[in-house]
Amino acid sequence: MRDILEAVAAGDLSPAEAEAQLAGYATTDAGRFDAARESRRGLPEAILAEGKTPDETATLAVAAVETSGRALVTRASPAHAEAVADALPNCDIDRNARAKTIVACESDYEAPDIDATVGVVTGGTSDAEAAGEAAVVLEQMGVSVELLEDVGVAHLGRVLDHLDLLREVDVLIVAAGREGALPTVVAGLVDTPVIGLPISTGYGHGGNGEAALLGMIQSCTVLSVVNTDAGYIAGSQAGLIARAVAAARDE
Amino acid sequence: MRDILEAVAAGDLSPAEAEAQLAGYATTDAGRFDAARESRRGLPEAILAEGKTPDETATLAVAAVETSGRALVTRASPAHAEAVADALPNCDIDRNARAKTIVACESDYEAPDIDATVGVVTGGTSDAEAAGEAAVVLEQMGVSVELLEDVGVAHLGRVLDHLDLLREVDVLIVAAGREGALPTVVAGLVDTPVIGLPISTGYGHGGNGEAALLGMIQSCTVLSVVNTDAGYIAGSQAGLIARAVAAARDE
Amino acid sequence: MRDILEAVAAGDLSPAEAEAQLAGYATTDAGRFDAARESRRGLPEAILAEGKTPDETATLAVAAVETSGRALVTRASPAHAEAVADALPNCDIDRNARAKTIVACESDYEAPDIDATVGVVTGGTSDAEAAGEAAVVLEQMGVSVELLEDVGVAHLGRVLDHLDLLREVDVLIVAAGREGALPTVVAGLVDTPVIGLPISTGYGHGGNGEAALLGMIQSCTVLSVVNTDAGYIAGSQAGLIARAVAAARDE
Amino acid sequence: MRDILEAVAAGDLSPAEAEAQLAGYATTDAGRFDAARESRRGLPEAILAEGKTPDETATLAVAAVETSGRALVTRASPAHAEAVADALPNCDIDRNARAKTIVACESDYEAPDIDATVGVVTGGTSDAEAAGEAAVVLEQMGVSVELLEDVGVAHLGRVLDHLDLLREVDVLIVAAGREGALPTVVAGLVDTPVIGLPISTGYGHGGNGEAALLGMIQSCTVLSVVNTDAGYIAGSQAGLIARAVAAARDE
Amino acid sequence: MRDILEAVAAGDLSPAEAEAQLAGYATTDAGRFDAARESRRGLPEAILAEGKTPDETATLAVAAVETSGRALVTRASPAHAEAVADALPNCDIDRNARAKTIVACESDYEAPDIDATVGVVTGGTSDAEAAGEAAVVLEQMGVSVELLEDVGVAHLGRVLDHLDLLREVDVLIVAAGREGALPTVVAGLVDTPVIGLPISTGYGHGGNGEAALLGMIQSCTVLSVVNTDAGYIAGSQAGLIARAVAAARDE
Amino acid sequence: MRDILEAVAAGDLSPAEAEAQLAGYATTDAGRFDAARESRRGLPEAILAEGKTPDETATLAVAAVETSGRALVTRASPAHAEAVADALPNCDIDRNARAKTIVACESDYEAPDIDATVGVVTGGTSDAEAAGEAAVVLEQMGVSVELLEDVGVAHLGRVLDHLDLLREVDVLIVAAGREGALPTVVAGLVDTPVIGLPISTGYGHGGNGEAALLGMIQSCTVLSVVNTDAGYIAGSQAGLIARAVAAARDE
Amino acid sequence: MRDILEAVAAGDLSPAEAEAQLAGYATTDAGRFDAARESRRGLPEAILAEGKTPDETATLAVAAVETSGRALVTRASPAHAEAVADALPNCDIDRNARAKTIVACESDYEAPDIDATVGVVTGGTSDAEAAGEAAVVLEQMGVSVELLEDVGVAHLGRVLDHLDLLREVDVLIVAAGREGALPTVVAGLVDTPVIGLPISTGYGHGGNGEAALLGMIQSCTVLSVVNTDAGYIAGSQAGLIARAVAAARDE
Amino acid sequence: MRDILEAVAAGDLSPAEAEAQLAGYATTDAGRFDAARESRRGLPEAILAEGKTPDETATLAVAAVETSGRALVTRASPAHAEAVADALPNCDIDRNARAKTIVACESDYEAPDIDATVGVVTGGTSDAEAAGEAAVVLEQMGVSVELLEDVGVAHLGRVLDHLDLLREVDVLIVAAGREGALPTVVAGLVDTPVIGLPISTGYGHGGNGEAALLGMIQSCTVLSVVNTDAGYIAGSQAGLIARAVAAARDE
Repeated sequence: MRDILEAVAAGDLSPAEAEAQLAGYATTDAGRFDAARESRRGLPEAILAEGKTPDETATLAVAAVETSGRALVTRASPAHAEAVADALPNCDIDRNARAKTIVACESDYEAPDIDATVGVVTGGTSDAEAAGEAAVVLEQMGVSVELLEDVGVAHLGRVLDHLDLLREVDVLIVAAGREGALPTVVAGLVDTPVIGLPISTGYGHGGNGEAALLGMIQSCTVLSVVNTDAGYIAGSQAGLIARAVAAARDE
Repeated sequence: MRDILEAVAAGDLSPAEAEAQLAGYATTDAGRFDAARESRRGLPEAILAEGKTPDETATLAVAAVETSGRALVTRASPAHAEAVADALPNCDIDRNARAKTIVACESDYEAPDIDATVGVVTGGTSDAEAAGEAAVVLEQMGVSVELLEDVGVAHLGRVLDHLDLLREVDVLIVAAGREGALPTVVAGLVDTPVIGLPISTGYGHGGNGEAALLGMIQSCTVLSVVNTDAGYIAGSQAGLIARAVAAARDE
Repeated sequence: MRDILEAVAAGDLSPAEAEAQLAGYATTDAGRFDAARESRRGLPEAILAEGKTPDETATLAVAAVETSGRALVTRASPAHAEAVADALPNCDIDRNARAKTIVACESDYEAPDIDATVGVVTGGTSDAEAAGEAAVVLEQMGVSVELLEDVGVAHLGRVLDHLDLLREVDVLIVAAGREGALPTVVAGLVDTPVIGLPISTGYGHGGNGEAALLGMIQSCTVLSVVNTDAGYIAGSQAGLIARAVAAARDE
Repeated sequence: MRDILEAVAAGDLSPAEAEAQLAGYATTDAGRFDAARESRRGLPEAILAEGKTPDETATLAVAAVETSGRALVTRASPAHAEAVADALPNCDIDRNARAKTIVACESDYEAPDIDATVGVVTGGTSDAEAAGEAAVVLEQMGVSVELLEDVGVAHLGRVLDHLDLLREVDVLIVAAGREGALPTVVAGLVDTPVIGLPISTGYGHGGNGEAALLGMIQSCTVLSVVNTDAGYIAGSQAGLIARAVAAARDE
Repeated sequence: MRDILEAVAAGDLSPAEAEAQLAGYATTDAGRFDAARESRRGLPEAILAEGKTPDETATLAVAAVETSGRALVTRASPAHAEAVADALPNCDIDRNARAKTIVACESDYEAPDIDATVGVVTGGTSDAEAAGEAAVVLEQMGVSVELLEDVGVAHLGRVLDHLDLLREVDVLIVAAGREGALPTVVAGLVDTPVIGLPISTGYGHGGNGEAALLGMIQSCTVLSVVNTDAGYIAGSQAGLIARAVAAARDE
Repeated sequence: MRDILEAVAAGDLSPAEAEAQLAGYATTDAGRFDAARESRRGLPEAILAEGKTPDETATLAVAAVETSGRALVTRASPAHAEAVADALPNCDIDRNARAKTIVACESDYEAPDIDATVGVVTGGTSDAEAAGEAAVVLEQMGVSVELLEDVGVAHLGRVLDHLDLLREVDVLIVAAGREGALPTVVAGLVDTPVIGLPISTGYGHGGNGEAALLGMIQSCTVLSVVNTDAGYIAGSQAGLIARAVAAARDE
Repeated sequence: MRDILEAVAAGDLSPAEAEAQLAGYATTDAGRFDAARESRRGLPEAILAEGKTPDETATLAVAAVETSGRALVTRASPAHAEAVADALPNCDIDRNARAKTIVACESDYEAPDIDATVGVVTGGTSDAEAAGEAAVVLEQMGVSVELLEDVGVAHLGRVLDHLDLLREVDVLIVAAGREGALPTVVAGLVDTPVIGLPISTGYGHGGNGEAALLGMIQSCTVLSVVNTDAGYIAGSQAGLIARAVAAARDE
Repeated sequence: MRDILEAVAAGDLSPAEAEAQLAGYATTDAGRFDAARESRRGLPEAILAEGKTPDETATLAVAAVETSGRALVTRASPAHAEAVADALPNCDIDRNARAKTIVACESDYEAPDIDATVGVVTGGTSDAEAAGEAAVVLEQMGVSVELLEDVGVAHLGRVLDHLDLLREVDVLIVAAGREGALPTVVAGLVDTPVIGLPISTGYGHGGNGEAALLGMIQSCTVLSVVNTDAGYIAGSQAGLIARAVAAARDE
């Protein structure tokens, strides 16, 4: 601990980074940024912009960059994006408007790189946000992503056209709303592990993703699932598996 | 009414049949047999054996035969079948053990015959009972039935192998349990009207047919549905459509 | 494929229509327009305006017209309607304010015409939107529509006054909110196939169409149902049946 | 209190009746019999046999007879009936097998008599038990009962045939299972107060009386309801209303 | 019918009133006003302002006054009230801000008067709206109303202080939110018929009136219930009972 | 650890007790007995007989006695009780048939004794099992128990008669089924902490304790609750509070 | 009563305080302030600002101060706070922005002081509001509060670091959202009574606090729970226990 | 196909195996054995004994052995085990009574062997069946299994004692009932991918595994889940991941 404090005194270490190393989080006016999760599980800690003001989001993003060299913001509106960019003028800012994510990196941030690939499949346009969120998380973990969109179960031909891709990747995330049948169909065709990501489209009885979640959890093929719209969880879980595969490749 | 009563007096008409003509139902010790539904909608009135003793079932079957020349019993155990056969020694008895149905006809019963075909498709073994019940109802309405079994969505090839059949029939009933994806997949491949029949297989969250029903009602393809395990309703609804088609053929 | 590409090169075929023929959909800035569903099932592909901006809706409508000569937009606000009309100055625009639909046709669009009639029945004022959506879909399929409104079960006389109409059409869609008893009552009086369309009126326990859906699915008469407010699905399913009837008429 | 105790000492009052007068209940080996409810609300306290052994039921029936001159047992099997009859050899025993009720009266029991009539209407055979329970409670309160059975909404004519009766009684209990539409239909035709009694028939989604209860609570006509299968509550509530009407007649 | 038409021709009858007598409803730009319910069941037909614009509400109110001499509007905002008053300058307008009701009467409207009293009891401030709606409906039926407010079950003394009142009225409506225990407590103390009116207060699990409704439907005392916040239904049902009592008084 | 092993070797310590001290549990053929919970939280570890055979229950009871000098068995049938008594011939056996508990103690077992009192209140006969289970747990913790039975909310007088008792104890457990209003009523009258214990009586909608649990959790008075029928949890929680009070008394 | 009225006449007692002493509540334009709860149970009566205008809130706060010398407002926005401060210029105002509470005291208000401590533990930032509300209620009861924040179950080390504190307090409130595992983990480590406070964070299936509440109610350790976000109830219940402990300390 | 038929003719291939190679399944009197799943996804096809008679189970097991050299039976009672053993006298039979599985192998069956390890963790005794089912599936896929039992969250120390093991395996399955907190706690401590397996223990509200499933799906750590009690799915999914890891090891 003495080393850390002396580095702070010498200006070699920001107080935020020092606090993160000592306490596992950095304190800000907008709450705490939990820096420890990344070191604990190797997962990029995300700042959920939904429900936060642009200012609060930017404050946490600054703390994240100071602590770990990078900030990952999810469910961000354009206003959030603008505030983050203004607060981090020296960072490279990468905003994905469909996925509603922002990644801000210090110019010397060294991104990880993992020798594994995850396929992210969607059934339709409304699956793009959560699927994109999963893809961004994977990229931040250094995993290669193959994105395959709009192969809904109502157009079976599109699924069958991409069987090779579906079989070649190390893990598959399959996102689907409404009745959520796509992961079941895909998992019946491949021996790749499939993670079902239910999406809160649909309306009336069983809407809001309920039918999709139940359909995946009752699937007559082998799947595991995450909660509705949980793109961050799906991406992180696929990333943990991909990392295990990559580690085995490196043995 | 005078004619009816005179026919009873003359022994030309059984009291049960006379009551059915006058009141719309025949009274028995085991309850009433609703003879009027058949004349109202042309649907064979079924005696639901489940929850009735073999004796009560047989009593109602006798009333049905006296009234309309035929009895259709659903969800019948072997004990029900035996009691019905004993009570109707002069009838032809046709028991379908998988569908749990019994059809008892007087020897001179003239079955209807309709120039239309309904396809009945199942995803797996546990769909056989409800699907079979639907098929028997259809046959009693005089509709031709094409049965296509075990083409579950986990084995997509089996579905694709039978596309011609699926497209040639006038109406399709597609039964499926667990996540209930099969009707969605089938309806995406054909322009035949599809009736989804959810089956109460599955376990845990969304079990008992809940996931299957929700999945069909949220389907991203065009379907209408009936309640879980409602083979009689699915068959009758398909039969009403088939009859409309056949009537048009006959115009 | 060579033919298609040469037609594009010669200007005889728009790129959108060519893409639709080759890939099954037309790509736009606002997402994909799925042109293939119409050729697959003969159902008019609808653009759901709800949740889209007027601009996005107009962009997709243009793609639809380029691809198939017609655009059908559902759940459209006045702002959506204005944007669509502005974007398609050479089309005939038919807006149905109660049904919240827009139909835009090229002047030389040849509408289909089917020799079959569907009755669309409503219990009250609040059923008009979904029922109207169903009617518009049917009209776009070329099916004749008989609309019978405000014959709620609380005023039984109104139902009984129209029995002849209810019995003469080929298929019936019966929309009802609150307790959803109307399809049950109607189906007890006719031998026409009835599709129940539950409406999300009602409040408190079982509100939002839950009681109506459950009541139709548990009906003591023979019905099939679609999801709450699913006017497009009800209309399409009735249209598929009507087309089967009309085809039989033409044999 | 002294009077009561002296009457016990003199043998003019049984200990059970004395305890009931003093404490509001009679203690038995099988639990307490709550004698006070009758004096509090004028409602016959019922012994629910379901879940009790025949012996326990008989013990409580003896306490009831000692306390109030009468015992009313609901949901009683034949074994319960036999045990009650054995335990009360000097009572008149009236068992209603369909309603599963037993009424045991001392020979000198003076039944109440109220100048009011309640109509009890059922949609089908499976409504008979709960409706019969309601009817027996009403009879024990001295209310006249008009029973109208099997007028289900699928056979509308039967309802319309009995409009006069439905309008003449002071209160109506309308029992229905499945989709529970009958009370809605009846209440649309009369200005008599209607109490909806949902019955736990039906199966699949919304089964067990859920659809019937929701349908009645969402009714587009004016109704109040009781819980599923709650024949005792429906009868008691109708009885309280009938007594209020009769009291007004007597003013 | 000839008489009606001649009266219209002579200007003695408004077209709206003539239509109401002939068809059972008056047609307006804002939909139909169902005039027949009043003659069918003697219940004042209410115009539900919620979900309608002030203009639509005023249009229907005008039709109601033309048809029946009076308009009853429920769930009305100040803007609705203003529009109704502007549209009916010659009517007496009575707005109840807490109950959110408006009653507009022609100056020569003869209100009914019934010799019966209904007690309306509330547990707390948030029950006032629905309870007030019930009270206004009752007053429009000519029933006397005794309002007893804020006697929640958490302050049992307040209930006990008013036992005489609770016992003297002909019918009781008891409104309660949260756990909904008040009707149970009241019904245990009186022999007056009690209608439970659950209110959608409460939060978290079982909020929105769910716990209150379930608690009333499971009550260990005798009650019947209406849906959550259904003040109009509770008032109408109590009014039907009150009218039956008053009719008996008049015999 | 050496001490423990030497004591085993010398026969001064049973292997079970040694294992319990070292590992926190004793291993048996019927599973593990978790001895550590008692030392961790001072709560008597209970053996849940429901779902276990009499033999398994007895084996675990023997392990419990060897480990801690006492066994507490809950939800025990007579057969379980017999097996436990046979397996522990040298123990004092105390079976509470209503609470379905068995307590077996070595003759030299020193029961704890705590200077605090918990009141256990029930609304009716069916609350006796869970309430009794709570009482037995409390007694095993050395807490005094005041049992107050059958003071249901339908007979308010019985509650009011015992106000002094309700106010004098240190903590109250109030058990109630059906609508579960009793804890709300009691908590409105006292300043003693109240723990609501919902009971799975009731039927139809909200049955199985659902209405009781929701009613307690939504109570307009201050309560905390445990799960339905969770007598062991209610007793243990009240015991932890009572021990805190007693410890304060001893300071 | 005469004394009270004479004190009012003499100006020694405000009318509000007099009404509170006589009737148990003070009447204002914004509704009633229930002064009696404090004297009944010693719990500070809170004014729930949510759903009230700033003016209504201020009016009730004035009545509270007049009646009891203090006002406690919960779920208050800045606008509510400003209105309260303006209306009570002579009071000390203490606003807790995170807990959304306001406490206004007359300068001579004598706060209670209790010799007991409650620990309030949170899993994350979103638990702060309800936990803070609980803490403020406790402070107003005179109980000492130890606040321990952000010790979520995903960072187990933080929990283990504070075991001594968790074991030393008299009662624990443990707030947690999402899966709500924290109270289970804490209760497994201490013998202090634990009250679980589920928080309505989370999304998708089981969101809005449903999973947290179910998880606490099913906990494999001993807990009692309050409803989702019910900080006031959790604080009050812990305060009642703390007061019982303090009273024992004072014996 | 000719080769296959000639091999059958020559007796080198059983008809069942030939059918399996040609059609993907073997037909038996007890239904079809789906041999294709193994070749499709490399997952051992299991025969679910629950709901089948011992004879049916044995018939399918014989078909499985004839087709693939091995039969895997799940949820098997002792009677099922006996029937299978009798029907396959030449096979090695391995019955796991706790997991309720049977594995029957021909003596020359060559089991697969995969260089990867899966940890299977349980919280308590009642998790053993589903966890054991998962373990058996994994073993049949050739994956090494580390079983870690009874490390429930109520005894946190047991979890912490095994951190090394939890971190060393390639994938973790964590089974837990009641509140299901164990996977959340474990996933917070490791960077191994965790699959949550909810178990249907628990009672009352949220029982039957509902709380456990919701808790896992809402977990504040990264998890994917399978349905309640779905040991076969959890094992198969973990096996697919393990095989991907092992394949990477072999590259």
